[in-house]
Amino acid sequence: MSAQIPNSDLPRILIIGAGFGGLKLARKLSNKAFQIVLIDRNNYHQFQPLFYQVATAGLAPSAISFPIRKLFHKAKNVHFRVAEALKVDTKAKTLSTDIGDIRYDKLVIATGADTNYYGNEEIKQHSFPMKSTSESLQLRNRILECMELALTEKIEADRSAFMNVAIVGAGPTGVELAGAISEMRTYILPKDYPELDFSEMNIYLLEAGDRILGTMSESASKASHSFLKKMGVQIITNARVTGYKGTSIEMSDLESINTKTLIWSAGVAGNVVAGFDPENILRSRMRIDSHCQVIDQADIYAIGDIAAIEGADHPHGHPQVAQVAMQQADLLAKNFIMTSQGKRAKKFTYQDLGSMATIGRSKAVADLPFLKFSGFFAWIFWLFVHLMNILGVKNKLFIFIEWLWYYLSFDQSLRLVIKQKKSQPED
Amino acid sequence: MSAQIPNSDLPRILIIGAGFGGLKLARKLSNKAFQIVLIDRNNYHQFQPLFYQVATAGLAPSAISFPIRKLFHKAKNVHFRVAEALKVDTKAKTLSTDIGDIRYDKLVIATGADTNYYGNEEIKQHSFPMKSTSESLQLRNRILECMELALTEKIEADRSAFMNVAIVGAGPTGVELAGAISEMRTYILPKDYPELDFSEMNIYLLEAGDRILGTMSESASKASHSFLKKMGVQIITNARVTGYKGTSIEMSDLESINTKTLIWSAGVAGNVVAGFDPENILRSRMRIDSHCQVIDQADIYAIGDIAAIEGADHPHGHPQVAQVAMQQADLLAKNFIMTSQGKRAKKFTYQDLGSMATIGRSKAVADLPFLKFSGFFAWIFWLFVHLMNILGVKNKLFIFIEWLWYYLSFDQSLRLVIKQKKSQPED
Repeated sequence: MSAQIPNSDLPRILIIGAGFGGLKLARKLSNKAFQIVLIDRNNYHQFQPLFYQVATAGLAPSAISFPIRKLFHKAKNVHFRVAEALKVDTKAKTLSTDIGDIRYDKLVIATGADTNYYGNEEIKQHSFPMKSTSESLQLRNRILECMELALTEKIEADRSAFMNVAIVGAGPTGVELAGAISEMRTYILPKDYPELDFSEMNIYLLEAGDRILGTMSESASKASHSFLKKMGVQIITNARVTGYKGTSIEMSDLESINTKTLIWSAGVAGNVVAGFDPENILRSRMRIDSHCQVIDQADIYAIGDIAAIEGADHPHGHPQVAQVAMQQADLLAKNFIMTSQGKRAKKFTYQDLGSMATIGRSKAVADLPFLKFSGFFAWIFWLFVHLMNILGVKNKLFIFIEWLWYYLSFDQSLRLVIKQKKSQPED
Repeated sequence: MSAQIPNSDLPRILIIGAGFGGLKLARKLSNKAFQIVLIDRNNYHQFQPLFYQVATAGLAPSAISFPIRKLFHKAKNVHFRVAEALKVDTKAKTLSTDIGDIRYDKLVIATGADTNYYGNEEIKQHSFPMKSTSESLQLRNRILECMELALTEKIEADRSAFMNVAIVGAGPTGVELAGAISEMRTYILPKDYPELDFSEMNIYLLEAGDRILGTMSESASKASHSFLKKMGVQIITNARVTGYKGTSIEMSDLESINTKTLIWSAGVAGNVVAGFDPENILRSRMRIDSHCQVIDQADIYAIGDIAAIEGADHPHGHPQVAQVAMQQADLLAKNFIMTSQGKRAKKFTYQDLGSMATIGRSKAVADLPFLKFSGFFAWIFWLFVHLMNILGVKNKLFIFIEWLWYYLSFDQSLRLVIKQKKSQPED
């Protein structure tokens, strides 16, 4: 069965995934001489850097989600479909999806990455990931439900297990989450649950490496470490989590930790699409050349978290961050236009614009190319950069009001456990 | 097992349900000489009159939901629990719930009403109700998913079935939904889905009675009928829906209608709590006297949609609207305080403040006690009343911005299909 997509005389570029890379590419190619087919499993673009604020009741899911169709109202050559990529047939040049087969002239894989449990099924089953809006919502529900359950628990140790939160992986996501949950413990939860004693609640940040924010500078590590310690977060480095059945975190050479909420932000694995030879893939990323073309696969490209450039200055591929995806999308759009005009394609060079993490109110760390700083100004800078990068004027406005409100009132007001019923009507 | 609730020397009033009635009662009794235990199955209060705007992508669920605990930060005598009422033991004066038994001195049943399918299991299974935030979200997801599915459909009749929407029941909810969906069809969907032909999309409003808004005045019926007709809604009165298996609505004496989305807003049934004798209940409502006490049950009261006063000026009970619930809550709070001071309780008299329904931009109908009007001023009045009644300053602000934005841009931007994954981690 073939999917219903209008015919066109233009060469068709099929883009899988509307994350930072795929979406930017489609927008850059809007109203150019290509037919663009963009698919994603959701009908909205998700602003990943703020997932942690949804999880901690700071922002509504809708504030960081943007309907994809709205972006292409004026782009007549772009056709968006909600679809799940199943398998590429590189010879027939078609992608099979759950809404039928889609033919392509050029294919761009921008499927991003998902949580990596490194094969531990037990942890996968019992822990909470945070790689989508809906996973962030689930985590919000979980944290609040555990407080309700703590209220029903007579025995202190069991109550404490409901209140405790452990985060595995101290990259930016883990650090930002730990900070936000610590602020909830200080400012909000004691007001909501006057019957609970929040000295019984522990927040653990467990990191396998020897410092937190391992991809950032030493000074950023130190500053964030000291911020988090002051906020009462228990940081354990060189912690190797070996097992978790829902109550107790087992670690090698360390005492186990009791918690009903384990958040897993310890690694990512590329969302590989089926249909490629094993040699096209290395450590769950597509091997691409410096033009973002998949090695030995003419007309197939990969960008962002799913891709790793071979033999570049970054031997294991560029860092899996939004900046790389967006810069590769930019380059690829230009190259598609240039090669269609008979010009030569350019090579990708990554321009590192720096990285940041926020720990709490007035507390952030920033590594810019020529400047590393932390504290209040880093925090203001963080707020500004994130606000500017979110899609949509109304989303910007809503997030700004939420942040201002929280700053002034010390109260996030999205502490809602909204669950969709399991029993939905049948088609 | 008994639920963990602090002991108190004060008499305990247990309130089931934090809707308009239960919540108002608990707030009126805050910091009075009672111990209040308030339970609800959700941790948030839902503003029912705006469910239809969540369903039609006009408002975020969080804008019309308010965390209950936040309302009682300063009320030391109020204990809130997320719990499901299971059964009352009127002799032992305890309520069993899913978090354990709760003892009471006085019990107030404010459980409201849910969708009534009048025993038709087939319709229950295949149609969409709209009596909670999460059901409204499901409906939003459904409408958008059906448009995506229509894109994949070659055959016109099948495509049309995906695009069509039928609403059964033309009370305020049905009328407001029909109007809002019609506006989506006019202003938004054609921009989002340029590949679909929206002349293929039909909106049906089916009503068993002989006029829409049957509980309002004749002039409100006529005005709303003419508004909806101009907006292209197909109104069918005297329509008795007999069956629906997911595709075709069967009606007695009328041709069947093809649609994949059937919204059921044709009636409500009280959420009866188990443990009462059959004579305590009439047509799924608790029989109460003019002091809101359940007939022949000392210390048990019922207010709002679940209750019907015997032998009052309204032979079948007062209308099941927020006003009645709130006025009864007011009276009950006063009576509890007065009787505890040895004074006599007062009887309930309903003061009808009127009713309203909005059909679309600049189009509403209002029946006030001394004035019936429709059109632009009724619409402004509707906006004002709803904005004033929503809980929380920030919610008011957000809703005001959303409405203003939509009014100016003709674009609701919450067209997100956010689903929670079925596979959640286990406890």
